[in-house]
Amino acid sequence: MTNRYLINPGRRRALTVGGGLAALAGLPVVALADGVRQDPPAKAAGGGKALPDYAAWKDADAMIVHSANTIELRRDAFGNSTITPRERLYVRNNLTPPSADIVRDPDVWSLEVSGVAKPGNLTVAELKRLGLTAVTMVLQCSGNGRAWFPHKPSGTQWTVGAAGCVVFAGVPVKDVVKALGGVADGMKYMTSTGGEVLPEGLDPNTVKVERSVPLEAMEDAILAWELNGAALPLAHGGPLRMIIPGYMGVNHVKYIRHLAFTAGQSPAKIQQSSYRFYPVGEKGSDKYPSIWEMPVNSWITSPYQPGKSHPAGRVFLTGVALGGFHALKGVEVSIDGGQTWRAADWFGPDMGRYAWRNFALSVDLKPGKYMIATRATNDKGDTQPKERRENNRGYNNNSWLDHSVELEVV
Amino acid sequence: MTNRYLINPGRRRALTVGGGLAALAGLPVVALADGVRQDPPAKAAGGGKALPDYAAWKDADAMIVHSANTIELRRDAFGNSTITPRERLYVRNNLTPPSADIVRDPDVWSLEVSGVAKPGNLTVAELKRLGLTAVTMVLQCSGNGRAWFPHKPSGTQWTVGAAGCVVFAGVPVKDVVKALGGVADGMKYMTSTGGEVLPEGLDPNTVKVERSVPLEAMEDAILAWELNGAALPLAHGGPLRMIIPGYMGVNHVKYIRHLAFTAGQSPAKIQQSSYRFYPVGEKGSDKYPSIWEMPVNSWITSPYQPGKSHPAGRVFLTGVALGGFHALKGVEVSIDGGQTWRAADWFGPDMGRYAWRNFALSVDLKPGKYMIATRATNDKGDTQPKERRENNRGYNNNSWLDHSVELEVV
Repeated sequence: MTNRYLINPGRRRALTVGGGLAALAGLPVVALADGVRQDPPAKAAGGGKALPDYAAWKDADAMIVHSANTIELRRDAFGNSTITPRERLYVRNNLTPPSADIVRDPDVWSLEVSGVAKPGNLTVAELKRLGLTAVTMVLQCSGNGRAWFPHKPSGTQWTVGAAGCVVFAGVPVKDVVKALGGVADGMKYMTSTGGEVLPEGLDPNTVKVERSVPLEAMEDAILAWELNGAALPLAHGGPLRMIIPGYMGVNHVKYIRHLAFTAGQSPAKIQQSSYRFYPVGEKGSDKYPSIWEMPVNSWITSPYQPGKSHPAGRVFLTGVALGGFHALKGVEVSIDGGQTWRAADWFGPDMGRYAWRNFALSVDLKPGKYMIATRATNDKGDTQPKERRENNRGYNNNSWLDHSVELEVV
Repeated sequence: MTNRYLINPGRRRALTVGGGLAALAGLPVVALADGVRQDPPAKAAGGGKALPDYAAWKDADAMIVHSANTIELRRDAFGNSTITPRERLYVRNNLTPPSADIVRDPDVWSLEVSGVAKPGNLTVAELKRLGLTAVTMVLQCSGNGRAWFPHKPSGTQWTVGAAGCVVFAGVPVKDVVKALGGVADGMKYMTSTGGEVLPEGLDPNTVKVERSVPLEAMEDAILAWELNGAALPLAHGGPLRMIIPGYMGVNHVKYIRHLAFTAGQSPAKIQQSSYRFYPVGEKGSDKYPSIWEMPVNSWITSPYQPGKSHPAGRVFLTGVALGGFHALKGVEVSIDGGQTWRAADWFGPDMGRYAWRNFALSVDLKPGKYMIATRATNDKGDTQPKERRENNRGYNNNSWLDHSVELEVV
């Protein structure tokens, strides 16, 4: 393949593009530079700010601390093992978390359940007797990728790190509902209320974390008390969290204290006007779609060394891809800013519809500048668009152009 | 079901057995005791001894520290999420680990490869350009379950906790071999040498960690630099470890510095006489089978509260099952010491042939004493035997009787 100039039709500058794609097999073993670093040092600096006490156990070197309630994983720290370790899972809290006292004995936490034939309260210990399952899934903040919206939406300027693939274990909501006689007639939503202590003197509806999702979301939903093999920590909603696989982060209500099956959606601001998909410059309201199901997405995780060049030769371009609410079908990689695409290979375990998968493409790169993009497609047929879908709050960004990275090869 | 007395035909005492198995569906929601604890407190005391510095990051409350080089996971800390977090993965080192300096910059670690057409040295950085994959697998010490051997074999008295299910990522050994021109003629074994610093004044063969496995083990073997999504820690063999899915722990040589394809097996004691399956009272030698492939196994992980009784009513009996070298086929649970068995349900993700799976069986237990056993079968047709296969060093214990637990229900 000869070197050539690529004019990116989008907003990026012209890039010198060289090299080409090479089959995995049959490559000569040449140009193995001694001591070359392909990944950034594990001890590279984090985001500068210190981890808050309740998340002090996070891997500081792998995280970017935006604020005490917003902590992102670095793009170079996703790894190739499918599961995101707890220490590397992003944190996003809408309110200050409750006291750590509530996770000291998770089994005594009490959940009120209403909108069922036999409403009542159940402790976690009681829930543990009703059913048990585990699900591997992508947990992702609705605002992941917000940093690329040009109108600078309010909220954390996440790039790719407000996402992880983790295992939650708990009781299927369906089992709880069955034990309580079934959903009451006329209920159309499943509404979860968080256990945060609300500031006094304010209308609770303006601050409380209470989210409604369509009743059919109950199908795969669980009330989880375990994350990645150990008790669910406070930072991630312990002792008990509503988990709705395939849905965006805000719907997985933490420290859930009330599960209600309701005829309408919650009157809380977080339901009525926040977390709605509406035009830039408008005000949010219930006439716009709620942020519920996750769209298909993907991004390169390695090599990613901003400001550093990469040695020429063979390299594995790796990343993660998620089908969103649907299973993955495939993922393509481009090294020329989207002019040409090639299917990448999955590797590692397939953990089901709601999990992400690691992928790799082996390429032989000659010196030059590359623009590396990835584009996933799910079983429903949704493919990542080139451009983000603009919206006032900067939600659901799955633009492949935004997620692309530049790589200088020397 | 009426209460009855069960005389266990083995070496256990007579147990009062009551209650019976109940289908998951159709159970009345009764007897939900308030505040009941089904699992032991997360903060229960560990094994007493302190964690060694190189493993200080382990979850102390979940581990039993036998010695600085032998650390076991508590039976009540396995969780239900398939993957064992790094903080809960057992540690077993044959020698004192090398200095932590070797994991400061993993990419510069150098591996010698011999017994191939083009022998040479490769750094981890170079290996990263040759291939990439990830495998979910059970890592298990050969002596897991040794505590139940009546002749008290020397070595750590592990019960069930010298095992975990983790994800390793690295380069397929096959890709490395291919890049180096293939295995040299006449080689029948893949031999790995650890990077430990050997004590001076001793014949290296008496102390060095060097293990040979049949050449065909190369098929799924990887040279791993990543564990559960982050760089492989020193405690688990970082910067680089030989990983042979389906094989017992000793074969996964840590800090590997030499990979050799050899005509014969290593002359090291650890190969020639240790880690051999031979009769009690005999001396180990190469006439006995080496500890290579892992046998099928399973054990209950909850409820497990020695010295504590459990409240009557519905309870999920949970555990882990592994197929060993072969995929799992099924697992049965008995609450009457093996007189009757019932198939348990898998839950959570199926991560492939070498991973373990979580299982659960819902039972309704009346007051009484139960002896709960589990019995897994793999695709090859191997089923856990009732009795352990006696051997001098206490390896490969997969007796369902040894792994059973007693439960008192009140």
